Amino acid sequence: MTDTVYDMVILGAGSGGYAAALRGAQLGLSVALVEADKVGGTCLHRGCVPTKALLHAAETADAVREAGAVGVRASLEGVDMAAVQKYKDGIVSRMYKGLEGLVSSRGIEVVQGWGRLVSSDTVEVDGRRLTGRNVVLASGSFSKTIGQEVSGPVMTSEEALALDHVPASAVILGGGVIGVEFASAWASLGSQVTIIEGLPHLVPNEDEAVSRQLERAFRKRGIAFRTSTMFESVDRHEGGVSVRTADGATFDAEVLLIAVGRGPATQGLGYEEAGVSMDRGFVLTDGYGRTNVEGVWAVGDIVPGVQLAHRGFAQGIVVAEKIAGLDPRPVEDDLVPKVTFCEPEIASVGLSEARAVELHGRDNVTTAEFNVAGNAKSQILGTQGFVKLVSLKDGPVLGFHAVGARMGEQVGEGQLMVSWEADADDVAALVHAHPTQNETLGEAAMALAGKPLHNHG
Amino acid sequence: MTDTVYDMVILGAGSGGYAAALRGAQLGLSVALVEADKVGGTCLHRGCVPTKALLHAAETADAVREAGAVGVRASLEGVDMAAVQKYKDGIVSRMYKGLEGLVSSRGIEVVQGWGRLVSSDTVEVDGRRLTGRNVVLASGSFSKTIGQEVSGPVMTSEEALALDHVPASAVILGGGVIGVEFASAWASLGSQVTIIEGLPHLVPNEDEAVSRQLERAFRKRGIAFRTSTMFESVDRHEGGVSVRTADGATFDAEVLLIAVGRGPATQGLGYEEAGVSMDRGFVLTDGYGRTNVEGVWAVGDIVPGVQLAHRGFAQGIVVAEKIAGLDPRPVEDDLVPKVTFCEPEIASVGLSEARAVELHGRDNVTTAEFNVAGNAKSQILGTQGFVKLVSLKDGPVLGFHAVGARMGEQVGEGQLMVSWEADADDVAALVHAHPTQNETLGEAAMALAGKPLHNHG
Repeated sequence: MTDTVYDMVILGAGSGGYAAALRGAQLGLSVALVEADKVGGTCLHRGCVPTKALLHAAETADAVREAGAVGVRASLEGVDMAAVQKYKDGIVSRMYKGLEGLVSSRGIEVVQGWGRLVSSDTVEVDGRRLTGRNVVLASGSFSKTIGQEVSGPVMTSEEALALDHVPASAVILGGGVIGVEFASAWASLGSQVTIIEGLPHLVPNEDEAVSRQLERAFRKRGIAFRTSTMFESVDRHEGGVSVRTADGATFDAEVLLIAVGRGPATQGLGYEEAGVSMDRGFVLTDGYGRTNVEGVWAVGDIVPGVQLAHRGFAQGIVVAEKIAGLDPRPVEDDLVPKVTFCEPEIASVGLSEARAVELHGRDNVTTAEFNVAGNAKSQILGTQGFVKLVSLKDGPVLGFHAVGARMGEQVGEGQLMVSWEADADDVAALVHAHPTQNETLGEAAMALAGKPLHNHG
Repeated sequence: MTDTVYDMVILGAGSGGYAAALRGAQLGLSVALVEADKVGGTCLHRGCVPTKALLHAAETADAVREAGAVGVRASLEGVDMAAVQKYKDGIVSRMYKGLEGLVSSRGIEVVQGWGRLVSSDTVEVDGRRLTGRNVVLASGSFSKTIGQEVSGPVMTSEEALALDHVPASAVILGGGVIGVEFASAWASLGSQVTIIEGLPHLVPNEDEAVSRQLERAFRKRGIAFRTSTMFESVDRHEGGVSVRTADGATFDAEVLLIAVGRGPATQGLGYEEAGVSMDRGFVLTDGYGRTNVEGVWAVGDIVPGVQLAHRGFAQGIVVAEKIAGLDPRPVEDDLVPKVTFCEPEIASVGLSEARAVELHGRDNVTTAEFNVAGNAKSQILGTQGFVKLVSLKDGPVLGFHAVGARMGEQVGEGQLMVSWEADADDVAALVHAHPTQNETLGEAAMALAGKPLHNHG
């Protein structure tokens, strides 16, 4: 029996895989989409989306707690974690239903089961062989656990999301995106949280000014953290864990959340056997997602670089367009916007100041900041933070960085500025709506252009 | 005694006036800023800023009321209007203090008192004559009252903002920005609201699709409205008002808020006597704020066009730069972003579909929408709405329109798209961060570019 030869066989239906499938089908390609779990992958089912639902419950708890300050008499009677779960699962299942509808409406064949690459053009799923003129590897990532057994009070974000109660206390190993998001959510929901981070700052991939501001905010919120501190061991005991760090300190808590990053899910999937070039488990590609093996492509978290769903979407689209013979622009990691949804939120795109100085030299880089203390809407929200623009002197804006309540949503304008290589003057000449938080971008641009409006000092 | 001759004498220290003063001083001009009330004007003290504080209290009340849906057990015990006032006044006075500090740090001379133009280069304030090489008229606007006496239960936004309680019921005359913002705030705070609007839709200056969506949302929220309905009369009686409309209906309520727009505050200020060309009370200018009289300029709400604080800022800056001999770009009303802060929020910039069709012809205009039902973050917030892009076929985006909770903040990216005449492809090629509301702009752009990602139907 001869099976169909598909234009694309996609191994993994997460953000990168399903985006490749949707775009491929749209372009008239025949597509098989192989998935062992659910279409939507980590982001929809166990990552971005459910975390943000949890963070919105946390934001709501804060709003209730602080309602008196704006004149609304309210009392916080508790967090009903079963109801939080129901809310979160409701969001996920609604989005999942929508996605399933899309996938099916575009005629994509979803093949349920564990797939494995058995040759450069064939994926095997439960004995069935799917052959493709192109194979797209999109097997995603898993939470790293640095050798610890995940069970009971020791968990990754996946178990943390499924908890049926708010832990009274938590140690979070890792002050990156996932670590600070859980720290923020749990603290708002009533947990006593301590973050352990090996590097000198929280969110160490952000501009250092942003890290410092987040640290100030977390201190004010009573979220404890130890930076430049290495994890050593964890003991489980009745009622919780004792976490020991290399400096000899111990931290007791009900749970330990390991949030030290995500590794590529590529083991045992036949990639190396098929001759695909790899590096420490990651699949190497060019800017268009091409591996070294003709007809084999890769997208998403298995490709070295920032592991973000929307990078996966973009890569998936580019791969499908290349396969269909179009001429898309490659996805540049430097232009992928990043949002961390802790309270206060963080948004960035492009170069940090340090990185810009490294690339262009101190004398050629300039920056401007606008403190949200001078922004009416931010004051109304009772938040602190800033917008920072990093620019070439007399040249384009290279980086956009923001921190403050709800500032994540400002990343869109930041993205356009940086991607379109706007000069300060280009943005400063535009009118920003008053009184929005968005105004802070206009103020920062005016400051960068040497004509600050509401900037102090 | 000879007074100093200033480079700029500015009559009115609202958004337009103080922006002109700040920018002028920055450029080395000597500036006198004349104000009868407080620096900051309507927007800061009686308009945008206090209204948004009230709206945030309203948002908080909604968050408490709906907290159970996200798993947070809370009860709304009431609205303490004295505390809301204190919160609101705290925001205003903090921003005011900051502004006073800025004005004083730039060496601007603030002259307290009612100023009047007594010749084309002189403003008189309480007998003191201030002469300027340039005079900038920036006397702002007042709430129109269509011949009704404002007292007791009949009020404008100014009195409404100062109320010491939430009215049990309100009739709001006018479904424009101010009307729907108060309707939204009061409804959230517990009022029974009815809007009377003479035109066929609420927010009639927005794209009709936006108006329809707002109407759906208001219906769901229990905010009553009558469109295409003309006001006839109001009777005051014990405990409130009876409002009669031209169709013979009557509406009883505790208060009547008149929100039918703002007129130019130009009467009795000597403008006409100085030979300044005017039209129905407005001061006529070119794109740079120049009136027909050499050395006399005008900015803000007295200049025909959209009456928005940020347009005033921009005009003030342009006038100061022109006076200083720079070459700024004129402020184009079509590129001034608009945000209406009701729930759901509305953002727009550029042309509505109807206006684009009028200017370019039906065959040359195309649109794309993305419904926030397909956007995870919007689902998390429990909102409904859409982003709509209006574009020339195979040409640039001409208009951006959005409606939904918190969507006002998306206006920044909309503004860049429209101002920089981006094509759909330019925006569609960019990566938008997941899961943000900002993503909806990327989705709409992809749809417009013929490559929708998560768009249904």
